[in-house]
Amino acid sequence: MCIACTHTIHRAQHNFGWNKDFPPAVVAKPGETIHFECMDSSGGQLGSDATLETLNALDFGKINPVSGPVYVEGARPGDALKVTLRKFIPSGVGWTANIPGFGLLADQFKDPALHVWSYDANSMVPALYGPGGRVPLKPFAGTIGVAPAEPGTHSVVPPRRVGGNMDIRDLTAGVTLYLPVELDGALFSIGDTHAAQGDGEVCGTAIESQMNVEATIELVKDAKLQTPRFTTTEPVTRHLDGAGYEVTTGIGPDLMTGARESVMRMIDLLGAEHGMSAVDAYLLCSVCGDLRISEIVDQPNWVVSFYFPRIVFA
Amino acid sequence: MCIACTHTIHRAQHNFGWNKDFPPAVVAKPGETIHFECMDSSGGQLGSDATLETLNALDFGKINPVSGPVYVEGARPGDALKVTLRKFIPSGVGWTANIPGFGLLADQFKDPALHVWSYDANSMVPALYGPGGRVPLKPFAGTIGVAPAEPGTHSVVPPRRVGGNMDIRDLTAGVTLYLPVELDGALFSIGDTHAAQGDGEVCGTAIESQMNVEATIELVKDAKLQTPRFTTTEPVTRHLDGAGYEVTTGIGPDLMTGARESVMRMIDLLGAEHGMSAVDAYLLCSVCGDLRISEIVDQPNWVVSFYFPRIVFA
Repeated sequence: MCIACTHTIHRAQHNFGWNKDFPPAVVAKPGETIHFECMDSSGGQLGSDATLETLNALDFGKINPVSGPVYVEGARPGDALKVTLRKFIPSGVGWTANIPGFGLLADQFKDPALHVWSYDANSMVPALYGPGGRVPLKPFAGTIGVAPAEPGTHSVVPPRRVGGNMDIRDLTAGVTLYLPVELDGALFSIGDTHAAQGDGEVCGTAIESQMNVEATIELVKDAKLQTPRFTTTEPVTRHLDGAGYEVTTGIGPDLMTGARESVMRMIDLLGAEHGMSAVDAYLLCSVCGDLRISEIVDQPNWVVSFYFPRIVFA
Repeated sequence: MCIACTHTIHRAQHNFGWNKDFPPAVVAKPGETIHFECMDSSGGQLGSDATLETLNALDFGKINPVSGPVYVEGARPGDALKVTLRKFIPSGVGWTANIPGFGLLADQFKDPALHVWSYDANSMVPALYGPGGRVPLKPFAGTIGVAPAEPGTHSVVPPRRVGGNMDIRDLTAGVTLYLPVELDGALFSIGDTHAAQGDGEVCGTAIESQMNVEATIELVKDAKLQTPRFTTTEPVTRHLDGAGYEVTTGIGPDLMTGARESVMRMIDLLGAEHGMSAVDAYLLCSVCGDLRISEIVDQPNWVVSFYFPRIVFA
């Protein structure tokens, strides 16, 4: 029960895509708190009984639903929406998949793969990964945004300056997110809830998990914000960093190539040290390992590093 | 005094560049601990009395000296050098500069700028930044590597698969680094010590600071390591993360453009919230803010985020 909420967006109130002409599910005043019933990124197609067959039969016309939109009274182009994420209410089940054609190493991992997760939604203790290790959990919403001004329906897959599928794993409870508004009423939606993810989301999926979300929406008039930004007043990685990290690197003149190299080397290392198959390591890297740019100035070669938290095997 | 050390590389024993034909400064057995007298990246040209005039007169033929090389007995191509960083002995002075033509936003910051730091080398409490804030310190070596097999003298500026100027800010005391060996004896050198740096080193310089370093060098035979990797058994950001972060984003199809955008937006934010000039904010971002790749899979747009630690102004 959400004591502070004055509106509920029900699960049926979702859209596939962003469109300035989608009718509002709710009209809210700035300062109101809303309870969002979100769906997972498969729109309920992959549940606790999902198998490779279910994954192969995935209807891509029904992925990435976003709950909303909320029309925010008084919001105008040039304003910013200030979204305070109050609470995540996780479901306890989730999935991680390699979907052919999707992911940082899609050229190397061409076969579908699926891991179904079960976790304790009350304690949120680290979740067992069948092939090895326990992954610390920290729920967040992969997709948070407002509709772009440009007419038509826009895919939810790519994020944009108005937010959307940003997959920023630190958009957790307590965080305040600012989004640039392009339309009267802003048309805010949210979805794609994750129980855990590393920076990069390298295999293309996180621990995809249905959750409900409580968020307060305020307005910053005439903010002239150019891209999304957020404030967290708490540390972001203490659930992961207690035992340090194994770190691999990719060094060269292209950041994308460096990122790929650093992840490939970590997959090698997890195979050598934990006997893990390459695809199992790839999925595990996606839900807990982080891509960081160590240096971007020592011409012509940059260093991208992949940080794997040792606590997973501690 | 280094109780465990069996060799000292003195300050005079340095080179500008990597070269397989540079004579060893020391021949060491695997397992030995060495005391390195390192120089700062200006080779002593920028000291505590440095000014813009000193910076403008910088002799680029004398930058990036590395102390060494150490010939490691028994090291052969295909082995890995295992380097355990034991201790950093910092000097208490340092500098950060915008050097025209160098840095992530070189096109926007065309004038030279210099900040000279003074810090307590015993307590290592956060150092005051004149234009505002206090920066947490954590010393490390920006340049650690071995000589490449390719003949000739190679600039120290770019890092390579054999390491070098990687500027990975987590190569701190207690960390174990593995480097691919390409030559008999490996020819290990170290330099470019930093008192603090953010991931990315966005303005091109860190808190550049002379230090001495103690390191133990071991050998992993036939490791067939492809790129450098390291292990840290401790958390890496707890000196920075206590008050959370302000985070800005760059969203689009190119990681370099996204990285630049995220840093530009942080410079805007530091100006708006702390009245800081753009160049002062740029230098501050370089010594404590982090570039992270939040997602690299939601085609065609990736998200690069810049994390600025709020503790600097707490």
